[in-house]
Amino acid sequence: MKPNFSLRLRVFNLNCWGIPYLSKHRADRVKRLGDFLNRESFDLALLEEVWSEQDFQYLRQKLLPTYPAAHYFRSGIIGSGLCVFSKHPIQEFTQHVFTLNGYPYMIHHGDWFCGKAVGLLVLRLGGLVLNAYVTHLHAEYNRQKDIYLAHRVAQAWELAQFIHHTSKKADVVLLCGDLNLHPKDLGCRLLKEWTGLQDAYLETRDFKGPEEGCTMVPQNCYVNRQELEQFPLGIRIDYVLYKAVSGLYISCKTLRTTTGHEPHSGSPLSDHEALMATLCVRHSPPQHNPSPTHGPAERSPLISVLREAWTELDQGMAQGRWWATIAGYVIGLGLLLLALLCALAARGEIMEVAVLLWTPSVGLVLAAGAFYLFHVQEAKGLCRARAELQHVLGRAREAQDLGPESQPAGLLGQQEGDRAEEQ
Amino acid sequence: MKPNFSLRLRVFNLNCWGIPYLSKHRADRVKRLGDFLNRESFDLALLEEVWSEQDFQYLRQKLLPTYPAAHYFRSGIIGSGLCVFSKHPIQEFTQHVFTLNGYPYMIHHGDWFCGKAVGLLVLRLGGLVLNAYVTHLHAEYNRQKDIYLAHRVAQAWELAQFIHHTSKKADVVLLCGDLNLHPKDLGCRLLKEWTGLQDAYLETRDFKGPEEGCTMVPQNCYVNRQELEQFPLGIRIDYVLYKAVSGLYISCKTLRTTTGHEPHSGSPLSDHEALMATLCVRHSPPQHNPSPTHGPAERSPLISVLREAWTELDQGMAQGRWWATIAGYVIGLGLLLLALLCALAARGEIMEVAVLLWTPSVGLVLAAGAFYLFHVQEAKGLCRARAELQHVLGRAREAQDLGPESQPAGLLGQQEGDRAEEQ
Repeated sequence: MKPNFSLRLRVFNLNCWGIPYLSKHRADRVKRLGDFLNRESFDLALLEEVWSEQDFQYLRQKLLPTYPAAHYFRSGIIGSGLCVFSKHPIQEFTQHVFTLNGYPYMIHHGDWFCGKAVGLLVLRLGGLVLNAYVTHLHAEYNRQKDIYLAHRVAQAWELAQFIHHTSKKADVVLLCGDLNLHPKDLGCRLLKEWTGLQDAYLETRDFKGPEEGCTMVPQNCYVNRQELEQFPLGIRIDYVLYKAVSGLYISCKTLRTTTGHEPHSGSPLSDHEALMATLCVRHSPPQHNPSPTHGPAERSPLISVLREAWTELDQGMAQGRWWATIAGYVIGLGLLLLALLCALAARGEIMEVAVLLWTPSVGLVLAAGAFYLFHVQEAKGLCRARAELQHVLGRAREAQDLGPESQPAGLLGQQEGDRAEEQ
Repeated sequence: MKPNFSLRLRVFNLNCWGIPYLSKHRADRVKRLGDFLNRESFDLALLEEVWSEQDFQYLRQKLLPTYPAAHYFRSGIIGSGLCVFSKHPIQEFTQHVFTLNGYPYMIHHGDWFCGKAVGLLVLRLGGLVLNAYVTHLHAEYNRQKDIYLAHRVAQAWELAQFIHHTSKKADVVLLCGDLNLHPKDLGCRLLKEWTGLQDAYLETRDFKGPEEGCTMVPQNCYVNRQELEQFPLGIRIDYVLYKAVSGLYISCKTLRTTTGHEPHSGSPLSDHEALMATLCVRHSPPQHNPSPTHGPAERSPLISVLREAWTELDQGMAQGRWWATIAGYVIGLGLLLLALLCALAARGEIMEVAVLLWTPSVGLVLAAGAFYLFHVQEAKGLCRARAELQHVLGRAREAQDLGPESQPAGLLGQQEGDRAEEQ
C-alpha cells in the first residue's frame, strides 16, 4: 500500500419497507430503487426490509451489470430482510441471528418471526480489508412503554460483540442499517462506545438532508404519522457508522439523505429515507490517530453506558423470570382443573360440562407451558448478555483504576497497543 | 516476544454427563471431577454437559483457588451445558448459538431444548492471544438412519465459520469439545479443512489411552452398550484441535485419555473419557511453516468436502421443504374439517359429534401450523449454510483454476499472504 494511498467508498443504505401485500406501491418502489441504484452506481448498497426473496431476485437481475456481487441473508421464518449489492467481489460473508427478538405471541408485531440478524461481508478494496455489516434491530412500537427495550439493548450488545470479535483484522469497519434506536438511546450509545464506531452524520462537514439528519420524516407520504407525533421534525434511526484501525484514517466527505421523495421522480422509495455516504480512507498522519481507542478520558462514558445497559438487562431478566413464574402457576392451576374434571367425569357427574371444559383446560396448560419455556429462554438470553457486559465492565474498571500508564494493557479492544508493548 | 519463546499449555476436556435426575452418581462424579482438576492444575478445563448451573457453581467454588477464572455459557431453555475453568484471567468471552439444533417435537431427544452452542474465550498467555473454543454438537441417536445429519453438518459449518471469522487476529486457536462426529465423518472433515485445525490425537507422538483414541469405550460402566454395538473398541467423538498462525508452531507433546475410570479412584468421571493434552507453542523455524494454509496440493480435499457438505445440506433442505408442504396440506385439511363441523353444528345435525371433533381439529391445525413454521425455518437455515458453503466452494475453485502462482490471492483464509504481497 502506497503512503499517499486513498480510497473513496460510496455507500447506500435504505430500509425498503418491502412487506408483501401490506406495503404500498411495493413493486413500483422496488423498480425505481433498482433504476436509482443503477444510475448512481455506488460501491455498496445495503438494504433492509426486503422481506420478499422475489424482490431480491428481481433487484439482483436488474443490478447485475452494475453490482455483480449480491447476497440475501436468510434467517428465521420470514427472513432477516437484509441484502446487499456490491460493485466489488464479496470475499466472504456470514451472519449472526440475534438470540432475543421479541415474543412469538405478539403476532401482530411480527418481529419474532423475522429472525432479525446482522450480516457480515468481507471485501478487499485497494489492498484493504473492509468488513461491512448490515443490520436491522427490533422495532419500537411504543416509546413510552417499550416492552422490547431489554431485547433491543441485548441486540445492540450482540451486534457490538459480533463486530468486535469478527473485525479484529479488518482495516475498515462499516455498519449500515436500521437500528430502531434514536442517537441518544442506550443501545446506540452502547454500540458506539464498545465498538468505537463513528456516526457519519455527526462526523461529516457536508450533510444535505432533513433537519437533524432524520431518516423518518413527516414529509414522506408513506410514514406512519402516529409514530412521529412526539417528533415534529422526524426521527433518526438509520445509520452509517464506520471506523478504521490505527494507521488509517476514515472520514465522511459527504452524507446525503433523501427528503421524503426520491431525487429523480419525486415519490419516496420507502417510508424511511435513504442514506448516501461518501467515505474516504487514507493513511493517518503519524502524530494524529483519530481511531477510536478509549483513552483514560474517554473510558468513563464506556463504563457508564455499560452500567446502564447492565441495569436494563437485569430488569428485563427479572421481568422474564416473573412471567415464567406466573406461567408456572397457571400450569399448576390448569393441571389441578384437569384432574378435577377427570374425577368428575369418572364419577359420572356433570359429564357434559367436564367434557366441554376439558379442551380449554388442555389448551391452557399447553399455552402456559409454551409461555413458560419461552420466558425461561428469554431470561437465559438476557442473563448471558448481562454476564458478558459485566465482564467487560469489570475489565474497564480495572483498567481505569490502574491509571493512564496501564491503559494499553486494559481492554483487549486495544490489542494493537498491547502487542506493540509486549513484543 | 523473545526468539527462544516457548509456551506450554495443559488442557483438560470432558463431556461430564451431568443430566439432573437422570445421570447416575452425578453428585459424586462432580465432586471427584473437582478434586481431580484441583490436583492436576491444568491451564484450562473445558467441560460439556454441565446441564445444572448448581453443578457449575459448586465446581466454581471448589476450583476457585486453582482456577480463579470461570464462565458458564447460558443459552436455549435448558442451557448449552458448556463451561470453562481457567488458571489464567479470561480477557473476553462470547458465544454463538447454532441456528439449527434438532426438532422441538423430538422431546425424548431433548437437544432442541438445550440451545447447543460454541463458546469463545480470549486469553493472553506469555504475550500471545489464545482463542479457546468449547462446543457440543447435536447427538447422534441412530447412525444408520440419522435424521439429524444435515443439522450436524450445518452446525459443523457454523462452528467452522465462527472460528474462521473470530480468530483472525489470534496467535493460537484451540477447540475442545464433544463433536458427536467420528473422525472421518463429513462434519469433522469439513471443520478441519475449513479452519485448518489439527487433531491432537493424530498429531501427537505420545498418546496414552484406549485404542484408536476412543472417548466412549465399553470398559466404562456408564456407557450405553447399544451405542457401541457396531464399535467393539469404542468411538472417538471428543476432540482437542488446535492451530497456530504463521510464525508460530504448535505441537501436542502428550495426550492422555482416561480409560473407563478415573486414574485415582477407579470409577469413571463420566460416560465419556476425559482428554488431557499438553501443547507446546514456539517460534517456527523460518524455513518451516506447518501452519495449515491450503496449498495447491491441499486445496482439492477442501473442495471435495465442501461439495459433499453442499449435497448433504441440499438434501436436508429438500426434506425440510417436503415436511413444510405436508404440514401445509394437513393445515388445509384441518381447516376444511373445521368448516364442515361448523356447518353441521349450525344446521343442528350430529351436534355432539361436531362438538367432540371440534377440539382435535383445532389441535391438528395448530400443531400442523407450528410444524410448518418450524420446517420453513429449518429450510431457511440450511439454505443459508448452503449459500455460504457454495460461495467458499466457488472461491476455492477459482483459486485452484488460477494455479499455484495465484494461490495467495485465493481464499481470504490466507490473508497473511495477501497482505504481505500487496503492501
